[in-house]
Amino acid sequence: MPIKANSIISKKSGAKKKAHCCSRVMIEKVSPEIDAGLFPIKRTVGENVVVRANIFTDGQDEITALLLYRTVKEAGWHEVYMKPLGNDLWIGSFPIEKEGDYYYSIRCSIDKFSTWRKSLDKKMIAKQDISVDLKVGILILEEAKKRIKKESIGRIADFLKQLRASEDINILSAILINDELLTIMRKNLNIEDSVTYHKELKVSVERKLALFSSWYEFFPRSWGAQPGKHGTFKECEKLIPEIARMGFDIIYLPPIHPIGKTNRKGVNNSVECKDNDPGCPWAIGSQEGGHKAVHPQLGTVKSFRHFIDKAKEFDLEVALDLAYQCSADHPYVKVHPQWFKWRPDGKIQYAENPPKKYEDILPINFETDDAGNLWEELKSIVIFWIGQGVRIFRADNPHTKPFAFWDWLISEIKKDYPDTIFLSEAFTRPNVMYRLAKGGFSQSYTYFTWRNTKREFIEYLRELTQTEVAEYFRPNFWPNTPDILPEQLQYGGRPAFIMRAVLGATLSSNFGIYGPAFELGVSDAIANKEEYLNSEKYEIKQWDWNKEGHLKDVLAALNKIRKENPALQLTRNIRFCEINNDSILSYYKATGDYSNIILVIVNLDPYHTQSGFLQLPLDELGIDKGRPYLAHDLLSEDKYIWQGETSYIELDPQRSPAHIIHIKRHMRREQDFDYFV
Amino acid sequence: MPIKANSIISKKSGAKKKAHCCSRVMIEKVSPEIDAGLFPIKRTVGENVVVRANIFTDGQDEITALLLYRTVKEAGWHEVYMKPLGNDLWIGSFPIEKEGDYYYSIRCSIDKFSTWRKSLDKKMIAKQDISVDLKVGILILEEAKKRIKKESIGRIADFLKQLRASEDINILSAILINDELLTIMRKNLNIEDSVTYHKELKVSVERKLALFSSWYEFFPRSWGAQPGKHGTFKECEKLIPEIARMGFDIIYLPPIHPIGKTNRKGVNNSVECKDNDPGCPWAIGSQEGGHKAVHPQLGTVKSFRHFIDKAKEFDLEVALDLAYQCSADHPYVKVHPQWFKWRPDGKIQYAENPPKKYEDILPINFETDDAGNLWEELKSIVIFWIGQGVRIFRADNPHTKPFAFWDWLISEIKKDYPDTIFLSEAFTRPNVMYRLAKGGFSQSYTYFTWRNTKREFIEYLRELTQTEVAEYFRPNFWPNTPDILPEQLQYGGRPAFIMRAVLGATLSSNFGIYGPAFELGVSDAIANKEEYLNSEKYEIKQWDWNKEGHLKDVLAALNKIRKENPALQLTRNIRFCEINNDSILSYYKATGDYSNIILVIVNLDPYHTQSGFLQLPLDELGIDKGRPYLAHDLLSEDKYIWQGETSYIELDPQRSPAHIIHIKRHMRREQDFDYFV
Repeated sequence: MPIKANSIISKKSGAKKKAHCCSRVMIEKVSPEIDAGLFPIKRTVGENVVVRANIFTDGQDEITALLLYRTVKEAGWHEVYMKPLGNDLWIGSFPIEKEGDYYYSIRCSIDKFSTWRKSLDKKMIAKQDISVDLKVGILILEEAKKRIKKESIGRIADFLKQLRASEDINILSAILINDELLTIMRKNLNIEDSVTYHKELKVSVERKLALFSSWYEFFPRSWGAQPGKHGTFKECEKLIPEIARMGFDIIYLPPIHPIGKTNRKGVNNSVECKDNDPGCPWAIGSQEGGHKAVHPQLGTVKSFRHFIDKAKEFDLEVALDLAYQCSADHPYVKVHPQWFKWRPDGKIQYAENPPKKYEDILPINFETDDAGNLWEELKSIVIFWIGQGVRIFRADNPHTKPFAFWDWLISEIKKDYPDTIFLSEAFTRPNVMYRLAKGGFSQSYTYFTWRNTKREFIEYLRELTQTEVAEYFRPNFWPNTPDILPEQLQYGGRPAFIMRAVLGATLSSNFGIYGPAFELGVSDAIANKEEYLNSEKYEIKQWDWNKEGHLKDVLAALNKIRKENPALQLTRNIRFCEINNDSILSYYKATGDYSNIILVIVNLDPYHTQSGFLQLPLDELGIDKGRPYLAHDLLSEDKYIWQGETSYIELDPQRSPAHIIHIKRHMRREQDFDYFV
Repeated sequence: MPIKANSIISKKSGAKKKAHCCSRVMIEKVSPEIDAGLFPIKRTVGENVVVRANIFTDGQDEITALLLYRTVKEAGWHEVYMKPLGNDLWIGSFPIEKEGDYYYSIRCSIDKFSTWRKSLDKKMIAKQDISVDLKVGILILEEAKKRIKKESIGRIADFLKQLRASEDINILSAILINDELLTIMRKNLNIEDSVTYHKELKVSVERKLALFSSWYEFFPRSWGAQPGKHGTFKECEKLIPEIARMGFDIIYLPPIHPIGKTNRKGVNNSVECKDNDPGCPWAIGSQEGGHKAVHPQLGTVKSFRHFIDKAKEFDLEVALDLAYQCSADHPYVKVHPQWFKWRPDGKIQYAENPPKKYEDILPINFETDDAGNLWEELKSIVIFWIGQGVRIFRADNPHTKPFAFWDWLISEIKKDYPDTIFLSEAFTRPNVMYRLAKGGFSQSYTYFTWRNTKREFIEYLRELTQTEVAEYFRPNFWPNTPDILPEQLQYGGRPAFIMRAVLGATLSSNFGIYGPAFELGVSDAIANKEEYLNSEKYEIKQWDWNKEGHLKDVLAALNKIRKENPALQLTRNIRFCEINNDSILSYYKATGDYSNIILVIVNLDPYHTQSGFLQLPLDELGIDKGRPYLAHDLLSEDKYIWQGETSYIELDPQRSPAHIIHIKRHMRREQDFDYFV
């Protein structure tokens, strides 16, 4: 059915009362409002929601606009006055204080008393006769008294009593322009003069970890006690203290399930597989079980639970991979053959992206007529691992499954387990990635891995943080993954690894690495590809985690800085700074009250020392241009006393490719001594 | 009720079939779509609607997107294939060919045959085994045959027959990659694989005059046969041939109704009124009648109809003023006192905008409890004048009446009289002006009157033509009105009048003047105001229409150029050109097929000769940089042969402040001779 313009406008209007002012205020261009309210925005507890709208009415009447908000459980609205910014744009904000989703809307009223008072003010200035106006004011008060909130009735009665006691224009006007009276009247606007926006917009509230997290991915099979021997969960427990020391929050494991044997891939993704090749963990399922089983060489469901418990002791959570695909040996193939695509030659269709073939992996046919049962089974996998204590899932290639499936799955899971976090591994076109985020994914992989130049970073971060995207898409920046070894890391050496770690950890509040390939600086790639040579995806590796030159301390320092500085626990708050060198990227992040300001300066050139003059916008930061302020590099512990907007910066990538500077806003001259002892 | 994301996604999906691909294609950011489809876009017959959307699906499948459109009277959709522009953005367009409103939407399908064929192509290039793929192709064809349109069944059967007759891979693949087959299959997509956008968006179609019009406003009372004597419609008929000669389409008359006597304003808006002062026509209503009556000194309803008929003979329409306000003597005051605001002193509230007072005018109280009857009566005024042959109304100060009233009024009138045109005289904030346009006004006054500098014009035209506003707001550019004599016209002399006329007539396809004050160059203003001294609003003027230096011939030339060049009959098509002088504004307009290109160059400085180098974007215009092209100034009849993108421009405001150049794209060297003889 076509939408009729009158449908909302005449909501309250019968034939007799069409022009009632309840329809006089227009509320337009409400933001945030994702796809006309179809999708919620996302927040975590402690964040604000800033709402803007164009609000106006015909004529000269004054408007009061209230931002309304409530949690799902509350019946009534909380109200916040919105402020006019001029040209009909109004702004207001409310805090997210509790777990659970919120709703917001806007209610506007024609404010008759304010309108009357404004007109009176102008007439008084112009020294016009106001005797009739004063009578009108009294009438408005008398009307208001009939419907005013209990707590105000007494005061209004007082005012009216005073007004009735006098005929003197000066006395009457003095009473009527009393500020207390204006405040009372504003709080008691006639609901019949108000109009509420026709939508209730939703805020999906998740726990803090959805916004601020450090992920550490590793392959447990590479941590066997003896060289070349398959590692177990039990053996992997010994890694936990060190991962915790590096400051990570989440241990993410590639699929831990039995691996198929049919068409198993050999080392370097070879179609020839040797007997002792372990296969790719994403080829899920064998006679030993499917998505709800643990690979026998890793251990058991019980030993996995023990691993989770051990991690918990170190404040670490364990994330699992949600890869909805099967090896040919997966039990589903026999039990539910209808969930796969069958070819005319009687074989099941394996995954392909012509001319590429993935013979060891069978995609699930989401278009099966048995989709209802399929979806329920896929949901039961998540429920199963939630039962084992997992609350974080990294979805593998979600963009190759229907959006409707993810919308449904995530909403189903969150009903019972609202603390569940889903990370979308969709390396694809922006609209697809954004649609998955709208549908409920808490976080998403991004293009960060391939962004290298200053212009690229500024443009990309602008898109992620300064557009509507920032309201629902939480980026997670990964310098590397088992699938991606970017060119910068292949050629740039240790400075490049540090530079990428600093960028990932400070540009985005969510960040992750695939270790220990990252902290050991592994840079050997397949020729002309951005892929690891001898990838851990197809073989058991042996890692010397304490090899000279490892970056574990750098990562530990970065995560410590992130945890100690709330400015780095947000992504939306990034602002770029001017610096007259295209090889140096600089940005700052600050908390809303500017109590924590972190300035990051990164040399994007891993080969050469770069220098330039940085412009710090002191006005924005509330720093007095005439007074010195302290710039404390949290990486090197160097401290600089700066003054004014311009500072000389020089970064030698061999020493350190980056500064992460805590800006101390107001140095008190006398007390600075103890800062330097 | 909160909106649920799943509500549209699961529309067709039962528990058994949740993942059916009917829900796999996403259609997002459809444009134009005004306020989530609440308001229609506007077009006239002959225009196109260009529709863009982000369209994508999960996975690798090919998509076919159809732009759907139909008139209100048609049950079925017309279909146009949309084209992908990359990064999920698709575009399509359809023509408005008939009177009456249109609807449009988008239907997308997973195109299984194209998907299959694309995969086959890649495998063939990679020389992979395609035997199974060919069998899959045949299966797709066989499935399609069951539900294919009648006219294609024969050809599909032919193809299948050929396919069954062979086992040879080369023969099979040759048949299956036949382009005719692809075309047939694309035309016969399975409706079950398709999804239709959840809104039908509306196009409000008006007649051409809503888009392209020249308005001439004059006060009939100033055209009496004897000096100072009140003019009549009969006497005004003698103006019609000359207004037609100047090329105008519409004669717009200020209110023609009886004028109130109570608090009548004297000359120059004085509160002291002399006996023979005629009063302001906007103070409507006296004992002689109200909004449905004709001022006795002008004539009768009958003589007004005669005036309309006379105008029609010259292809001129007559527009009336719709000023919903009353003098204290209006019959409504006695018959419907409840339609006005009454003050505590027992008097009716007159119009005021403190400290300004309009004692001769009573605003209507749209918040009256009797609003139902009030609205019907106000509608009946429009119906009355429609009955006399009027189809164009200029609404006075519509922004001081409720938006809901105008929404209702215009929609009611257009139901029975779709050829009615409403011009909104809302000189107020942009959001308010745009809201009135969304609600149905065909055209609107603008800020043109106060835009003077190059930057102001470029920014304002960008807002009006390159944003969503262009879809529903049709600007009407007036260099002057009885209310406004802008400073430029007060000080700039004849060059300023010509410059403003050229700008109004070529920047906007709708344009109007208040004459003969304009063509006679009246520039006397009230001190420090942009208002006419001795305004015709308060007195009867005597005009010497043929006074030396009049601009009637310039206006005639401008309107002739507008009528002969379809490029000037649109506003959205404006593109600005670079020129290295901030006092020269240059822009071009072209028809969609570039068969008509008009380049306008205006010296914005009425005092000095200005010159500069103009950059004409020849690539955009499809002009060969290596060949000369003819630039023909339609104002001066000068012709220039230009070559390349840069041309020297010099404009002496005393000679002519503007060029309006017809660009002849491809000069054929040999045939150019006859162009110059």
